[in-house]
Amino acid sequence: MFRMDLKSFIIDVPNFPSQGVVFRDITPILSNPEAFEFALSGIAGPFVGKEIDVVAAIESRGFILGAPLASRLGVGFVPIRKKGKLPRSVISEPLVKEYGDDVIEIHQDAIAPGSRVLIVDDVLATGGTLESAVKMLKKAGAEIAGIALLINLSYLPGKDKLLKVLPATIPIHYILEY
Amino acid sequence: MFRMDLKSFIIDVPNFPSQGVVFRDITPILSNPEAFEFALSGIAGPFVGKEIDVVAAIESRGFILGAPLASRLGVGFVPIRKKGKLPRSVISEPLVKEYGDDVIEIHQDAIAPGSRVLIVDDVLATGGTLESAVKMLKKAGAEIAGIALLINLSYLPGKDKLLKVLPATIPIHYILEY
Repeated sequence: MFRMDLKSFIIDVPNFPSQGVVFRDITPILSNPEAFEFALSGIAGPFVGKEIDVVAAIESRGFILGAPLASRLGVGFVPIRKKGKLPRSVISEPLVKEYGDDVIEIHQDAIAPGSRVLIVDDVLATGGTLESAVKMLKKAGAEIAGIALLINLSYLPGKDKLLKVLPATIPIHYILEY
Repeated sequence: MFRMDLKSFIIDVPNFPSQGVVFRDITPILSNPEAFEFALSGIAGPFVGKEIDVVAAIESRGFILGAPLASRLGVGFVPIRKKGKLPRSVISEPLVKEYGDDVIEIHQDAIAPGSRVLIVDDVLATGGTLESAVKMLKKAGAEIAGIALLINLSYLPGKDKLLKVLPATIPIHYILEY
């Protein structure tokens, strides 16, 4: 596939959602079909043909990448949702965040025990949400097959945080880094 | 493609999210790769090869269907989000709902004027959110190419409501009806 400078599509928005934070707005990637396909191919890259049973993605932006990745890999899709959104019995996990007291949830029957789960999100920042997702999926009986992301913000401690809850052999894959 | 009884995957959950409502839980379709592909093919059906420029989908469940549909149709994807989630200048529209005072938004530059937009969501219920999405996208300069859904709840007035804001020539397409 041809090369694309995906970073040229991303718009940096200073002080969003809070003072001092630079938000990386990926919507211009999504709205350009070539950039969107290039991003999806890159994120799927190391997992194509690997033993993956399920893609689990984190509400809401994670759904935009995770659902087409599941379709592309030919596996099922499990939404990881904010508290109270799923209608049946759930497994939940508090979010390890600096602020707020959110909880993420999956349906109790969403993961067959021993399933190899690829976790998908758009950006690895502080890593709090992904750390909680890993813990929750393990509690559900999943084997974590990897984490697939569009962007890693290397100036934040997200990757180090994930390395504390995942063996170093589990791929943490992203195609853009800041 | 083989036939599948997609309704057999859906779990009816009484009294969710509120008393007297039957929630149609589609997560078992998503987690089954064959059912997910069958649903996506069916939803895309009448729009394959048609003049569509953009898929716009409604947060959050709409993203799970809309993003792979955009990828499948080879067009861009625009997220319609809840208030305050998009980082740049937005066009917004209040939600026409019985309860709450939500607002939906898209980025001001998300839709090139005259773009033919396919709106995607999971379920057409009261039609409030979709009605607001149609109004907002028109305000943004879009031409509505159609509405693509997994489910229509025909015992609710959603379709009638949409027919008041859309010409009858615009397809409102769904593959399951209750």
